[in-house]
Amino acid sequence: MTPIQKYPGKKDFPLSEVRHFLEPGPIVLVSSRWKGKTNIMTMGWHTVMEFTPSLVGCVISSGNHSFRMIRDSGECVINLPTADLADTVVRVGNTTGAEIDKFREFGLTPEDAEVVGAPLIRECHANFECRLYDDALVDKYDFFIFEVVKAHAAVTPKYPETLHYTGDGVFMVSGKTINRKKLFRPGML
Amino acid sequence: MTPIQKYPGKKDFPLSEVRHFLEPGPIVLVSSRWKGKTNIMTMGWHTVMEFTPSLVGCVISSGNHSFRMIRDSGECVINLPTADLADTVVRVGNTTGAEIDKFREFGLTPEDAEVVGAPLIRECHANFECRLYDDALVDKYDFFIFEVVKAHAAVTPKYPETLHYTGDGVFMVSGKTINRKKLFRPGML
Repeated sequence: MTPIQKYPGKKDFPLSEVRHFLEPGPIVLVSSRWKGKTNIMTMGWHTVMEFTPSLVGCVISSGNHSFRMIRDSGECVINLPTADLADTVVRVGNTTGAEIDKFREFGLTPEDAEVVGAPLIRECHANFECRLYDDALVDKYDFFIFEVVKAHAAVTPKYPETLHYTGDGVFMVSGKTINRKKLFRPGML
Repeated sequence: MTPIQKYPGKKDFPLSEVRHFLEPGPIVLVSSRWKGKTNIMTMGWHTVMEFTPSLVGCVISSGNHSFRMIRDSGECVINLPTADLADTVVRVGNTTGAEIDKFREFGLTPEDAEVVGAPLIRECHANFECRLYDDALVDKYDFFIFEVVKAHAAVTPKYPETLHYTGDGVFMVSGKTINRKKLFRPGML
């Protein structure tokens, strides 16, 4: 495939504010590395769980090639793709790392992370380096609780156009924003 | 407050397809009933966890008045508000049921659920009756795993205009949809 040419410039992003990107429910790409191999999976079942430490819970089905890589390495990167990557998001989700090198196959660029061994995906708007924090529900629900230990985000736009899966092949694309700050009590923002 | 006049007509909705509404990450209103009192809270930290049984995991902070009501009753209803209810969503989230009757205060209409004791919110686009399924992570993370035991949804629109919180008083409103079904393998939809 033709390499994707768009690489957003990024800065460090505060760990306690990761909810800005993840709470609205975007589909994400999860990258991993284990025994010299990398992989990427598409993931939509996740939730913010705490500000500090910055915790994110997510379901990574044991049927995924990434499951063992992430469980055994105890690390991954949650990458935030924007709507221009829609086709890539679907293709990553419909193939298996057991058969192909998804970075190469889909023209994505692995970048070294700062804290974890798993690679960042350069083409994504933001990258959250994660360490496995609690595996208490992995056996029963495939539910991993990660701590975000380092976050990188493009400076603009503040509200990237993200993809939100609704099943049956259809994604909702993030729309306009509305500000209701004046209705909030300060501690409730 | 002036009662809200819009009541969407609803039908039963398949339990295994709850992800259609919840996976895109909308802010929701969680209603509860315990010892003759009802309450409503605003909640944004949730994820689908399984199709069948239909499981949804969510963080309900122990600081919320709803926490004990939901834990002790073992039930709640997850209600899906649309963008026209934005001000109500914020007001519900910025008040406590320890001090006010939120249904009355905000002009919302409680309706009897079919399976659980907690009330539905009539003005919402969809209502998911939930029973506490697993409380293993409640003490440590305020994380409840619910089974959706009955679902009701407005027939139209299929893609309601939902609210997605990004922090700092700003909501993203769901935008257009894009269909990539042709890129999916059948089992991956």
